[in-house]
Amino acid sequence: MTRGARLLVEPWQVREMGLREDDLAESESLFALSNGHIGVRGNLEEGDPAGLPGTYLNSFFEERPLPYAEAGYGYPEVGQTIVNVTDGKIIRLLVDDEPFDMRYGTIISHERTLDLRAGVLRREVVWRSPTNRTVKVTSTRLVSFTQRAVLAIDYTVEAVDAPVRIVIQSELVANEELPQTSKDPRVAAALHDVLVPECHSSNGARSLLMHATRTSGLRMAVACDHVLHGEASLHTYAEPDWSRTTIGTSLAPGQRLGVTKFVAYGWSSRRSWASLRDQVDGSLSTALHTGWETLVDEQRTYLEEFWRGADVEIDGDPAVQQAVRFGLWHVLQAGARAEGRAIPAKGLTGPGYDGHSFWDTEAFVLPVLSATAPEAARDALMWRRDCLDLARERATTLKLEGAAFPWRTIRGQECSGYWPAGTAAMHINADIALAAMRHAWWSADTTFEREIALPLLVETARLWMSLGYHGDDGCFHISGVTGPDEYSAIVHDNTYTNLAAARNLRYAADVAERHEDAAEALGVVDDDLARWRDAAERMAVHHDAERGVHQQFAGSTDREVWDFAESAESDAYPLLMNYTYFDLYRKQVIKQADLVLALHWMGDSFSKEEKARAFDHDERLTVRDSSLSACTQSVVAAEVGHLDLAYAYLLEASLMDLRDLEHNTRDGVHVASLAGGWLALVCGFGGMRDHDGVLSFDPALPQAIRSLRFAVRWRGWQVHVAITRDHVTYTLEDDVDGRDGHVDLVHAGETFTLTTTEPVSRPSQERIPLTPTPQQPAGREPITSG
Amino acid sequence: MTRGARLLVEPWQVREMGLREDDLAESESLFALSNGHIGVRGNLEEGDPAGLPGTYLNSFFEERPLPYAEAGYGYPEVGQTIVNVTDGKIIRLLVDDEPFDMRYGTIISHERTLDLRAGVLRREVVWRSPTNRTVKVTSTRLVSFTQRAVLAIDYTVEAVDAPVRIVIQSELVANEELPQTSKDPRVAAALHDVLVPECHSSNGARSLLMHATRTSGLRMAVACDHVLHGEASLHTYAEPDWSRTTIGTSLAPGQRLGVTKFVAYGWSSRRSWASLRDQVDGSLSTALHTGWETLVDEQRTYLEEFWRGADVEIDGDPAVQQAVRFGLWHVLQAGARAEGRAIPAKGLTGPGYDGHSFWDTEAFVLPVLSATAPEAARDALMWRRDCLDLARERATTLKLEGAAFPWRTIRGQECSGYWPAGTAAMHINADIALAAMRHAWWSADTTFEREIALPLLVETARLWMSLGYHGDDGCFHISGVTGPDEYSAIVHDNTYTNLAAARNLRYAADVAERHEDAAEALGVVDDDLARWRDAAERMAVHHDAERGVHQQFAGSTDREVWDFAESAESDAYPLLMNYTYFDLYRKQVIKQADLVLALHWMGDSFSKEEKARAFDHDERLTVRDSSLSACTQSVVAAEVGHLDLAYAYLLEASLMDLRDLEHNTRDGVHVASLAGGWLALVCGFGGMRDHDGVLSFDPALPQAIRSLRFAVRWRGWQVHVAITRDHVTYTLEDDVDGRDGHVDLVHAGETFTLTTTEPVSRPSQERIPLTPTPQQPAGREPITSG
Repeated sequence: MTRGARLLVEPWQVREMGLREDDLAESESLFALSNGHIGVRGNLEEGDPAGLPGTYLNSFFEERPLPYAEAGYGYPEVGQTIVNVTDGKIIRLLVDDEPFDMRYGTIISHERTLDLRAGVLRREVVWRSPTNRTVKVTSTRLVSFTQRAVLAIDYTVEAVDAPVRIVIQSELVANEELPQTSKDPRVAAALHDVLVPECHSSNGARSLLMHATRTSGLRMAVACDHVLHGEASLHTYAEPDWSRTTIGTSLAPGQRLGVTKFVAYGWSSRRSWASLRDQVDGSLSTALHTGWETLVDEQRTYLEEFWRGADVEIDGDPAVQQAVRFGLWHVLQAGARAEGRAIPAKGLTGPGYDGHSFWDTEAFVLPVLSATAPEAARDALMWRRDCLDLARERATTLKLEGAAFPWRTIRGQECSGYWPAGTAAMHINADIALAAMRHAWWSADTTFEREIALPLLVETARLWMSLGYHGDDGCFHISGVTGPDEYSAIVHDNTYTNLAAARNLRYAADVAERHEDAAEALGVVDDDLARWRDAAERMAVHHDAERGVHQQFAGSTDREVWDFAESAESDAYPLLMNYTYFDLYRKQVIKQADLVLALHWMGDSFSKEEKARAFDHDERLTVRDSSLSACTQSVVAAEVGHLDLAYAYLLEASLMDLRDLEHNTRDGVHVASLAGGWLALVCGFGGMRDHDGVLSFDPALPQAIRSLRFAVRWRGWQVHVAITRDHVTYTLEDDVDGRDGHVDLVHAGETFTLTTTEPVSRPSQERIPLTPTPQQPAGREPITSG
Repeated sequence: MTRGARLLVEPWQVREMGLREDDLAESESLFALSNGHIGVRGNLEEGDPAGLPGTYLNSFFEERPLPYAEAGYGYPEVGQTIVNVTDGKIIRLLVDDEPFDMRYGTIISHERTLDLRAGVLRREVVWRSPTNRTVKVTSTRLVSFTQRAVLAIDYTVEAVDAPVRIVIQSELVANEELPQTSKDPRVAAALHDVLVPECHSSNGARSLLMHATRTSGLRMAVACDHVLHGEASLHTYAEPDWSRTTIGTSLAPGQRLGVTKFVAYGWSSRRSWASLRDQVDGSLSTALHTGWETLVDEQRTYLEEFWRGADVEIDGDPAVQQAVRFGLWHVLQAGARAEGRAIPAKGLTGPGYDGHSFWDTEAFVLPVLSATAPEAARDALMWRRDCLDLARERATTLKLEGAAFPWRTIRGQECSGYWPAGTAAMHINADIALAAMRHAWWSADTTFEREIALPLLVETARLWMSLGYHGDDGCFHISGVTGPDEYSAIVHDNTYTNLAAARNLRYAADVAERHEDAAEALGVVDDDLARWRDAAERMAVHHDAERGVHQQFAGSTDREVWDFAESAESDAYPLLMNYTYFDLYRKQVIKQADLVLALHWMGDSFSKEEKARAFDHDERLTVRDSSLSACTQSVVAAEVGHLDLAYAYLLEASLMDLRDLEHNTRDGVHVASLAGGWLALVCGFGGMRDHDGVLSFDPALPQAIRSLRFAVRWRGWQVHVAITRDHVTYTLEDDVDGRDGHVDLVHAGETFTLTTTEPVSRPSQERIPLTPTPQQPAGREPITSG
């Protein structure tokens, strides 16, 4: 049975039938549970076999040196790597002294189900031991959205065909052995024995371990306790690096032993070990007091509330239906309870990219969260605001004004040692500022606008003013930067960067004007606003008159075109693994949407025809060696009328992990690509835009989708959009308490007012493409079915 | 007494009066002796104190890992670092049991003289010991040009005012302790205990040590023997890492003890230890048999022959007179007996830049050697030819055709880990090919042309064809490369690179046509020649029509101009130590001559007016943070008529080390800058060019120089040029045996025939500048006096 066939397509579940050792690491990422504060990979309870054991606490990292063959001024010298913390998931089982291990004996059946409405991972195994004893093991696992320190596992063993002696060993394990890592730069650095024991204790069914990192000076605590369902002996023992609660009994056929394991985590860079110990113990007691059933109920209620204003329903493609919900689930998991910490590229589902956050969060994930889980978006931007001091320091090192945010980081310090694509990728600053502006529009939260958006906008506006310059041609230019496309670097006037910077400058002036006193406190003077607006107004954008297309950067369209046929023939994708950047940088080959990304988010800066031509041009050069591309290509393909191509890219974005399209889901899911599945549906086929804070729609469906419904949270309201081939129906609901009201929206260019009293229906506009459907580079055609 | 004042200005000597511990490392570089095969720094014989002990064998290196914060395809992973091999210079002295150490007792006088005609370093010290015994120590040291394995030191101690007991300990010392190195990227990597002992022996006054490197698999041997002048006891003892010959006696006042120490070195990557031991022992026996006096005579004769066809005489500036001879001396030392090995940037005078060779050799040093010591130039190019296989491999890694030479290397493998300035600096390939073409012109050696120049030209021509492309505009473009100016990177159509590549292509076709069979053996087909010439013909060069200047690269003149005033104010030169490359790359700031370098070597591609304007433009942007700039600025300043500015740059180039202008002479002398002093005089004020193999002159003198005479070796002849303010006189002599003959030369655009029978005199042309003398960036005006 292939991997794909073992994952059932169901609207609200991801169900895996059977077990294959080679697929374990991938499943562990798919089935990872997280609330944004703690994350546990979908490792089997019994620990062995494992693809990659993983338990993470948001922003709990160790430092490592960043080495250079040839050092230079301003190179970051300290990296940060997410730590696999003490594993609280482990529940080993001995059946008549035989370890329950899927590699031995016989798996009669094995099924795991991720339930997206219940927010739990269920497992049911029937296993015959090498000594011919059959047991049925069921477990249900959750990481609580309502109690953010808590992981809980309900675990039951049943004797099936013969009496058995059962021993359950429920453990906490620190410094787990991890597999070797590869040379792939997308994989995490290997760290060994990072956790230094600080204290351990046990009492009754409860135990606690505390550890600290060697270098980064962080301290963590984990405690667990157990509730038994059935008669059994119980003993708990703790050592510095592990604790174990041993539960033993004998079961007659049909008889069961159940145990609910509650685990609480905490960490701090500043609190004393005693206060941290007490905090974790307190969280654990609360969870015990709440009890398993109530935790499960709270989880479902939390998710019902989420889905009510966030769900996307598709008629016509069950795979995409499942995928978009799976994507929203991981987006929510990554941010729900991050509360002032970063949202990493992999969420807390794996160690890929060292657990770092990049621009993906602001450019792909936050637009989804602002529209579906606004508090998570607000918290993520609060984290950026809280990093402003570090970003100001970095700007000073770079001899720039304002704030320069890190290309990759956990805690806020720049950790990118590869500067042509790191430090030079200045667009991240506009991505952050514009995500803050967007969130202010969507939330209509003026406190957020004043306290979070304003400082982010102002400090990044200052950055752009010092980074760019007024050329002799009267334009404002930004030189020597790297745009979103990482197969070009150190270019002049990257269109995406320039347009984003222009908006950054303009909104900074607008928001500063709205919050005069707060702006003044940030040192903003009137002259600044004029200078920012002037630079925005004069921002350079390069157009190739001869070819009639915008350029990704000055001169981009004059470059040699990559030999795609050769790369396809030698099976050399992703190109970065087989060619030097020296090669990639100097030719026309696009790793990921760059100008096309501008067509999406800054679409009002282009005419319809310009968009059609630019998409057509770049489409032939884009190899999608990044997971941050298909969704944008989908959105713009839909806009310019290539609806079936848009659909193919939707498949790619949303199935990135369920189909392991980039062969690295094992290191964690691609949160931004999963967010991109939502973007492809809502911004692509829904035609939703929020330019300048005006919410507009212009839906059009591909062949494969008969109807599409989705909800977004807009300024405290839920806007429900139901799209069929002919009509679009808009419905308004209050997001909190059902009061009446209205919002102004735009449908296909026409403004209308939507009230809570009455839905509005409008005819769908036919989408006529201005160019024939473009070809992709050889070997890089999108997948065409889920 | 300042450093400068302690170095006397004399026409044929560099004499240092007194001794200061802080200046030791710098003097050690200035007084380093080398024949291109072995190099010994000017360390004091007694070993202590030392700035930086140094003994080097050409291409004897250890490997070290090149680490990366983020790895990537094609990154070199193994670096090479020159090894400080077993020190044969050590002669310690005990005076009545008191170690002779300049930091204790009293230096009554201390004088060291580098004699550029004798090719020896002399030292004379009168020292009063802490116990009030005065001795006079004299030493004369040479590294033989005629016996390339041999270092010899003649050492004498004289009791001055009281009877003394003298002990001389003459040693070989392996794995010397070296001082800590800094973060400056121009300094070598620190290696410790690199030499693993293989065998040691002693017999009579002779001892031998053999070592091998741990990783690079190289083996070296050193042996020494002693001849006594006077009565003394003698005992020799060897350990794995050191050997010692102890010589003891008592001296009455006025009485002397002399010892001549002969040291022979050898190394191999392939030969057995026994054969290497015998080789070194044989070299040592030959030296002993030759004897000190004859070695000294041979040395002087060798140098007389060299200077006869290479000397430059200046009337008007004694400092420059000394400097240009000192420069030629170091250029000769770096290459004389390298014999198929590299000529490193520092020669064998120090560990700077890890002992690597760069493009400087071909672009600055070989033009001088081809004109003054042709065999050394030939051998250096033979080394490149011998590296072709490695360069082909590197090209394959880079997915290019032909050969891609390493940016920095000792043995031939790419060792540059900083790729925007390393791998992308493709011009090195043209630099090598054109140096080979130049050498064929100068030597008229058709065997060289066929066997060395042809393969170098052909393989690099292939590289350019695969690196560049024909654009839609009909031009041939080369994108994403880094030109000579290291403050720009990954640019489109670097003018220097493109023009050099064009010549590379053209000459490859020409030479292939002249050696049809050899070209065919290299796989060259007729169609290649046409394609190469066509690409050369269509090579893109960008001109800024609005500003009326050529661009260093496409768009260069549109960039923001660096804030030089701010850098000057914050004393932030060299900029690379205080600003990120991200900052430097995106602005108009030139580290070193780039377009101006093209104006020199490809001057026939520009009109007089174009040269004047381009020089004027770039002069205002060039900060000379590289030692590879002043000489070129001098040459072009002279050509465009700014003769006094040219003179200032001549001072800078030629006094680079004698005045330690870049504060890093301690790590070794700047061989290319010293060669540049010669270029500034001969190509600048002498106006010498060799475009397309035609030797031309167009002299003009600055105020400070009354007359200038120089000789060059041209096609087996010596061309002597004597320039006064009014006239230029050309004289021809056969370089070998005085036969009669003639050559065609060009004076100020007019061709004439020069015969051995009669000098030719021509009036000097007045040089009228087309622009006012340009200003340099704030804080970077050239020095104005020696």
